Amino acid sequence: MTAAAETTVREAGVGRAMMGEATGVEQLKATLEMAQAAFEEGRTAAPAKRADWLEAIAAGLEWDAAALVEIAARETHLGTPRLEGELKRTIFQLLLFAAEIRRGEHYDATIDHTDPAWGMGPRPDLRRYNVPLGVVGVFGASNFPFAFSVMGGDSASALAAGCAVVHKAHDAHRELAARTAETVTAALNAAGAPSGLFALVTGRQAGEALVEHPLVKAIGFTGSTAGGRALLDRVAARPEPIPFFGELGGINAVFVTRKAWSARRKEILTGYAGSFTLGMGQFCTKPGLLFVPAGETAETGAELANALADFTPAPLLSERLHGGYADAVRRLQETEGVDVLLEGDFAASPAPTVLHSTADAVRKDPDILRQEMFGPASLVVEYGDESELARLAELLEGQLTTTLQAEEDDDVAGLAARLADISGRLLWNGWPTGVTVSYAQHHGGPYPATTSATTSVGTAAIRRFLRPVAYQSFPASRLPEPLQDGNPWGVPQRVDGVWHRPTADGNRKGISEVTAGQEGQL
Amino acid sequence: MTAAAETTVREAGVGRAMMGEATGVEQLKATLEMAQAAFEEGRTAAPAKRADWLEAIAAGLEWDAAALVEIAARETHLGTPRLEGELKRTIFQLLLFAAEIRRGEHYDATIDHTDPAWGMGPRPDLRRYNVPLGVVGVFGASNFPFAFSVMGGDSASALAAGCAVVHKAHDAHRELAARTAETVTAALNAAGAPSGLFALVTGRQAGEALVEHPLVKAIGFTGSTAGGRALLDRVAARPEPIPFFGELGGINAVFVTRKAWSARRKEILTGYAGSFTLGMGQFCTKPGLLFVPAGETAETGAELANALADFTPAPLLSERLHGGYADAVRRLQETEGVDVLLEGDFAASPAPTVLHSTADAVRKDPDILRQEMFGPASLVVEYGDESELARLAELLEGQLTTTLQAEEDDDVAGLAARLADISGRLLWNGWPTGVTVSYAQHHGGPYPATTSATTSVGTAAIRRFLRPVAYQSFPASRLPEPLQDGNPWGVPQRVDGVWHRPTADGNRKGISEVTAGQEGQL
Repeated sequence: MTAAAETTVREAGVGRAMMGEATGVEQLKATLEMAQAAFEEGRTAAPAKRADWLEAIAAGLEWDAAALVEIAARETHLGTPRLEGELKRTIFQLLLFAAEIRRGEHYDATIDHTDPAWGMGPRPDLRRYNVPLGVVGVFGASNFPFAFSVMGGDSASALAAGCAVVHKAHDAHRELAARTAETVTAALNAAGAPSGLFALVTGRQAGEALVEHPLVKAIGFTGSTAGGRALLDRVAARPEPIPFFGELGGINAVFVTRKAWSARRKEILTGYAGSFTLGMGQFCTKPGLLFVPAGETAETGAELANALADFTPAPLLSERLHGGYADAVRRLQETEGVDVLLEGDFAASPAPTVLHSTADAVRKDPDILRQEMFGPASLVVEYGDESELARLAELLEGQLTTTLQAEEDDDVAGLAARLADISGRLLWNGWPTGVTVSYAQHHGGPYPATTSATTSVGTAAIRRFLRPVAYQSFPASRLPEPLQDGNPWGVPQRVDGVWHRPTADGNRKGISEVTAGQEGQL
Repeated sequence: MTAAAETTVREAGVGRAMMGEATGVEQLKATLEMAQAAFEEGRTAAPAKRADWLEAIAAGLEWDAAALVEIAARETHLGTPRLEGELKRTIFQLLLFAAEIRRGEHYDATIDHTDPAWGMGPRPDLRRYNVPLGVVGVFGASNFPFAFSVMGGDSASALAAGCAVVHKAHDAHRELAARTAETVTAALNAAGAPSGLFALVTGRQAGEALVEHPLVKAIGFTGSTAGGRALLDRVAARPEPIPFFGELGGINAVFVTRKAWSARRKEILTGYAGSFTLGMGQFCTKPGLLFVPAGETAETGAELANALADFTPAPLLSERLHGGYADAVRRLQETEGVDVLLEGDFAASPAPTVLHSTADAVRKDPDILRQEMFGPASLVVEYGDESELARLAELLEGQLTTTLQAEEDDDVAGLAARLADISGRLLWNGWPTGVTVSYAQHHGGPYPATTSATTSVGTAAIRRFLRPVAYQSFPASRLPEPLQDGNPWGVPQRVDGVWHRPTADGNRKGISEVTAGQEGQL
């Protein structure tokens, strides 16, 4: 494809998206072929160069921040301060990933030299590192139009890994998607990245064709359980199966011990009210379930009403979500064993609702614990005996997070062990909304929270889009840089079982570490 | 379940397997429940303790080696020296995995301390490590009755990860499976491992029920593409999807450059003949395809006949495999564009067959390149122009290995890049049979070589059976050992982005490494 033709394809794509026009099947095919060509051109780039590309995207988003936030506020009804914070997080993520790949951690470079005395018989020279998968299809979410959308965690980690990305725009923020893609594409071009390394497509048909196309080697998805499962099943039916990294539904149960309840009831209910209504309850980590000791139902209702007295409702992300929210709340409210603790409404800007049930009721009908209400609603379940909590936890499906509100001397070891079984992140006396982007973050959890054992947030997300390749007895001059004894890129290498991390001056033999200051500047 | 009941369940299972009786659905259920209980009891064991269990299994297999090899030779027709070597490898693998988990690499322990100045906003204390998935179902292969069967790579890596294993015995070596399981169980019991941590089931019905049971959290499989795909599809249809680590078919193409052919034709053909007939060609890494320059067909045939003149055929692993082998060779032989270079036969102990085709023919019908013949047969394809090779490589499906036979100054960078796209291990002037167990090994490759981006051989195989869990703001006293600042188990920890590996004397601040000598003793 010529440069002029490429520009036409890209501009046609962005133009169509802005007009709300869906990507046709031929257009998708051309986009994927361009992405594949860009992947092949860019995949051997040194990590420092790829990091430059990520930093260029970050700078582009920073430069265009005012316009992006203005469009996002109009399309999503999320407040400007929240959107500014989300964009900051999105930019930070690109910079953190750039720093991570400059270090070269993601290569997992491993070198076994020839060893005639190896225990199972002579060992040949064998070296392994990670290479990018290829073109990745990314489906963004409506609730985080920056952080989990066009240039959110999935796109940023796939690009960091060395993949090309074709992003399926979410219908709930099409103009923002087109603008973001335009900014990203311009930044990548200016930085000299291969043309087509990132592209946007729109419409359901393009999305379905994306997961089925042979050039696509992995999918990143954030959205509903129903939508995610439908795509997962489509992926599973491909002649060549590919990984589907889906973040689907979740309830994010919170468990309050008797002692914590006695000591901090007001504080806990205030924190809970703030967390489940944050962003109008449209967080994948919203605490949708609170287990509290029985016996103070009226006081709890009054406390919640008090905590939410000054709450100003806003419209939900889309009409469709609003309808789904109202249906979900009404359905749960009408279930036997469930009543209303705090009456909300389903106005255009809905007032928060808190439902109420008991341990006895949910034991009879565990489905009460499995209903996601995507919006400002949550369920309080009263328990009698604290020792029941571990068994109640076993009634839950997989969760992104679970939270313990407990005192230092509470005996919750058994409960915590159960929570580790069913969730990806456990919090102690905190609230699950707010997901920091860092080295240790794990934003994932057993199905249906996600469809894999990976994270979609934090530096570990990069690993999803890599696969290992080993080289046996290759001449030194033909080895990829991360596997060379001379280590020209200065990446960590595990040599004959022992990790060596170069110092800043490239002294590999020093067996010391990259200094901590480098990423502290971010 | 009482200890006596457990013993009954276990002995009934082993006894039935020895009599060739299939495991019933109720028996499978009881076995899985025992495995789950054993998993829960054992999963928090310190790595040193779990390593003891692996070493106890290794010692048990060593102790019972003579009997195991005798049974294996009778059931598989594989020669005694080969089986002794395979058992040695299997024992070594257990010891290597024990050393690996003693080091604690597999926890991937990552600690982010509170950081009020973190770039996207204040960071809470967040710590992540890997925990075992739960009960793992393992399907062994017939062609490696030790290394890829009852206590082969999948079982050893799952146990090393902290999982419980329920192994579905291969019908082709039932007595060996039962004896191995008995030895393993006795060794685990003597070492004080939880009862039921390893169990054996038999029969197709138990195998199908195994992949569908909710207690099973991952599957390891080595076998045919058809069998693997059928199980994969069954797994994909589960309400809760689980990872399916399948190693399926493969061709293991070898590419000979003109210069290498001129310089080393005889040596190359001798190596090829030895490799494709090793173990009667029943290796998943058998070189099933050799690309050579056109023009010396008769000489090639004569050379191969010469190299195999002293070859003594043996029976294949099973009647069923023999039938499948004969069908596959005949089908390919009758394909247009394919003829016979070295005439073999389909006797009970079949003489090797080499088929022949050309670049033109395989371009017309790429399926010629995609027919696995599981037994002592291979296909030689003659090419005209060396520059065609990269495009010919693109006609191949995913491979476990690809091999270059080339000279130092050959220009094969483009071809090598293509081979890295389609295979998991690239060899230079070697032969793909023989897979060392080490840190850098990667025994995997794009579909249909495997169904994931993971390895089933080497220390990296352990990671397949783990998932991350993060702890946010947890009190120090309640953190799992690998995440404690005091690092009581002395595992590697990535702290605020920087890796720290304790020295042998537990000096964490030293930022130095475990000494290399420890595993050199294996």
